[in-house]
Amino acid sequence: MTGRYRTISFLSDFGTVDESVGVVKSVIRSIAPDAAVIDITHEVAAHDVKAGSLTLARSAQYLAPGVVLAVVDPGVGTERRAVAVEVGDGESVLVGPDNGLMAPAVAMVGGATRAVELVNADFQLPSPGATFGARDIFGPAAAHLCAGVPLTELGPLIQSRSLQPALLPVARPEDGGLECEVFWVDRFGNAQLNIGPEEVVDWGDRVLLRIGDLERTATVVDAYAEIEVGSLGLVIDSYGLLSVSVDRSSAADELGLAAGDAIHVGPIPDADGGGSDRDRGVTTPVTLRERR
Amino acid sequence: MTGRYRTISFLSDFGTVDESVGVVKSVIRSIAPDAAVIDITHEVAAHDVKAGSLTLARSAQYLAPGVVLAVVDPGVGTERRAVAVEVGDGESVLVGPDNGLMAPAVAMVGGATRAVELVNADFQLPSPGATFGARDIFGPAAAHLCAGVPLTELGPLIQSRSLQPALLPVARPEDGGLECEVFWVDRFGNAQLNIGPEEVVDWGDRVLLRIGDLERTATVVDAYAEIEVGSLGLVIDSYGLLSVSVDRSSAADELGLAAGDAIHVGPIPDADGGGSDRDRGVTTPVTLRERR
Amino acid sequence: MTGRYRTISFLSDFGTVDESVGVVKSVIRSIAPDAAVIDITHEVAAHDVKAGSLTLARSAQYLAPGVVLAVVDPGVGTERRAVAVEVGDGESVLVGPDNGLMAPAVAMVGGATRAVELVNADFQLPSPGATFGARDIFGPAAAHLCAGVPLTELGPLIQSRSLQPALLPVARPEDGGLECEVFWVDRFGNAQLNIGPEEVVDWGDRVLLRIGDLERTATVVDAYAEIEVGSLGLVIDSYGLLSVSVDRSSAADELGLAAGDAIHVGPIPDADGGGSDRDRGVTTPVTLRERR
Repeated sequence: MTGRYRTISFLSDFGTVDESVGVVKSVIRSIAPDAAVIDITHEVAAHDVKAGSLTLARSAQYLAPGVVLAVVDPGVGTERRAVAVEVGDGESVLVGPDNGLMAPAVAMVGGATRAVELVNADFQLPSPGATFGARDIFGPAAAHLCAGVPLTELGPLIQSRSLQPALLPVARPEDGGLECEVFWVDRFGNAQLNIGPEEVVDWGDRVLLRIGDLERTATVVDAYAEIEVGSLGLVIDSYGLLSVSVDRSSAADELGLAAGDAIHVGPIPDADGGGSDRDRGVTTPVTLRERR
Repeated sequence: MTGRYRTISFLSDFGTVDESVGVVKSVIRSIAPDAAVIDITHEVAAHDVKAGSLTLARSAQYLAPGVVLAVVDPGVGTERRAVAVEVGDGESVLVGPDNGLMAPAVAMVGGATRAVELVNADFQLPSPGATFGARDIFGPAAAHLCAGVPLTELGPLIQSRSLQPALLPVARPEDGGLECEVFWVDRFGNAQLNIGPEEVVDWGDRVLLRIGDLERTATVVDAYAEIEVGSLGLVIDSYGLLSVSVDRSSAADELGLAAGDAIHVGPIPDADGGGSDRDRGVTTPVTLRERR
Repeated sequence: MTGRYRTISFLSDFGTVDESVGVVKSVIRSIAPDAAVIDITHEVAAHDVKAGSLTLARSAQYLAPGVVLAVVDPGVGTERRAVAVEVGDGESVLVGPDNGLMAPAVAMVGGATRAVELVNADFQLPSPGATFGARDIFGPAAAHLCAGVPLTELGPLIQSRSLQPALLPVARPEDGGLECEVFWVDRFGNAQLNIGPEEVVDWGDRVLLRIGDLERTATVVDAYAEIEVGSLGLVIDSYGLLSVSVDRSSAADELGLAAGDAIHVGPIPDADGGGSDRDRGVTTPVTLRERR
């Protein structure tokens, strides 16, 4: 029996300090020896469903078609559902807990086309405890999909709209500028914001950043290396969003920024003290939802 | 020449900060291009043979059949033997140093059926120094097994009972309860003990923990999320053993527990101060040994 | 279309805390599903081109033939060139930035036989920003080579001698001994020097180490475990170079050594205070360069 899926993209908060990731891959290998497993990352902060969901959303458009196995699951062993969510009419299937982890990624690729609850014990491992869902439920489901088991064998269809939604923070206009949130601080200390370059284009090449009581100006640039020594840049990052950056140093360290922090981005005040008086359109917070 | 083994499960204490793991995999790839390498973990604490042996034992029952490459080897370059240990009449072969690292895993899957000492230089790399056995001896042996080289080509058969045994700590009855040891602290701070749920079943839903002078009660539960906020749980973990846990927080941090620490688990004393007077059977320490 | 390359050996400074490595592998998988990716390491210190180049040079002789994808790229998005460098008349191709990162490895395997600049947008991803070359330029180039695209399709040929060279530090004679540099401190705290055993052979089994004002003697040995408790060893390491080591402990911690530090290695002075008076040949610093 050969399936249509050959690749499993695997994200978790397991770290690689112990054998958890290896054991899940071993279980997959025993069920679907020809599936390739690609690690997205296993270093999502422990139990941080929101951070995991952002990581998965950033990755989604680049993943190879196939199965996505995503496990950040503080509610393991409780009544939260284990689910498999099909997208693109079967191009890919996301397997994991129904706790909002997969929702932004599902929305980004057009929403769920079908979803099942993973309750068929024929495609699970008998588990000594109820605490390792990736090994006993999610990993086997991902592998059986690669081995050719149809989605609907894994459990009963459920309403896509019953899946846990995600709420992503959206920047809101305030004080002539935008109240933003740091989505993510990367390894180099770049602090990705929840705005793109089009939202600051009217303010020229230099903008004002306000973090608590701290005010700094930053230059909008295309590459990290274009930032002048000792100054801040707003770089269009590799996801098309703006990142607060310092060339070859950590902006997050310099400004004390972490994921989830608030930061105000706005025009540099004129000499007479006024802000931009452009009539800015309102940016409305949206809940990512299922495609029609 | 195609072999019967297609998978190499790889555990070490090399970390991934440098190129060691990558170089071993490159050597394997050059010898056996069709073998898949699955990383169990490379974050075993440096030179900690006991921790490595427990990690391997926890993983053993889930590993895909094939070759297990296990290298935690503080004695590299000395007279400790390099060995390949066959289990299950050839279902799998464990390759590594003969220092007790592989002994618990070998015992768990039924003991050695054959073993050889890895001395045939035809299946080793010429090494500039004597310090990187995984690259020069163990990795090539694992790869050649996948490429179809018979076990006995790698070196002379040795007596299975001459292999270094493992001594795993077993809980012993004391003071109406059990003197246990922390086997392992996982990434989430759960402290796995060397006892299973059947050993505390007669004491009801709540038990006493004693760590040095500290006394705490804990509730026996099935899932981390069932632990009440601010209290301790004894959770049946994913290996069927009991773990001291706190919901969404680190029990090890809270109690100052690390692998190897002693912890007393027993019944909550009655109001009159007495302990359980059940006539408990004695739990005898055992040395894991070769299957008959 | 099947290519001649089946393996991509991947080194970067991305770490594995976020999804960067996973996304690059996903992009590769989508272009060349049959290529295997072997991680050399992704924990090169951020932006440390020299450390990355040494890691790659240590690995080079062990890598499987194929494509090497190497990305430590502080100048991403600027005018530094993106290149693919063929070695061994096509046995392997190194893909990465032209900033000296690949130069020592290229030199070690005989120098470049051809090189191209990666400018053909047909084999790149359209990128929202200019900051993720591995995902948008280097990874796709590596994958297309595995999928059978000829090197010269990726961009115009460039002169091999125009590639950025590497300057590796070479020990120089001083004060009767050698002024050395620490190339690398491994996970176990062994400090690899830029000299081999042949350079100290005339000084007998014991040599003098001088680090700043600190003087220590060390024994030249073949294996870490041969170092006496509490003393220092100069071990012939797995690359054939000498490492300052302590058995089962960290020499780097004990002596305060880090990569790039200077260390003097010389003969133990005679009782009359004199050093070795052997007429030592001069060790000349060399720039690694293209093979004729």
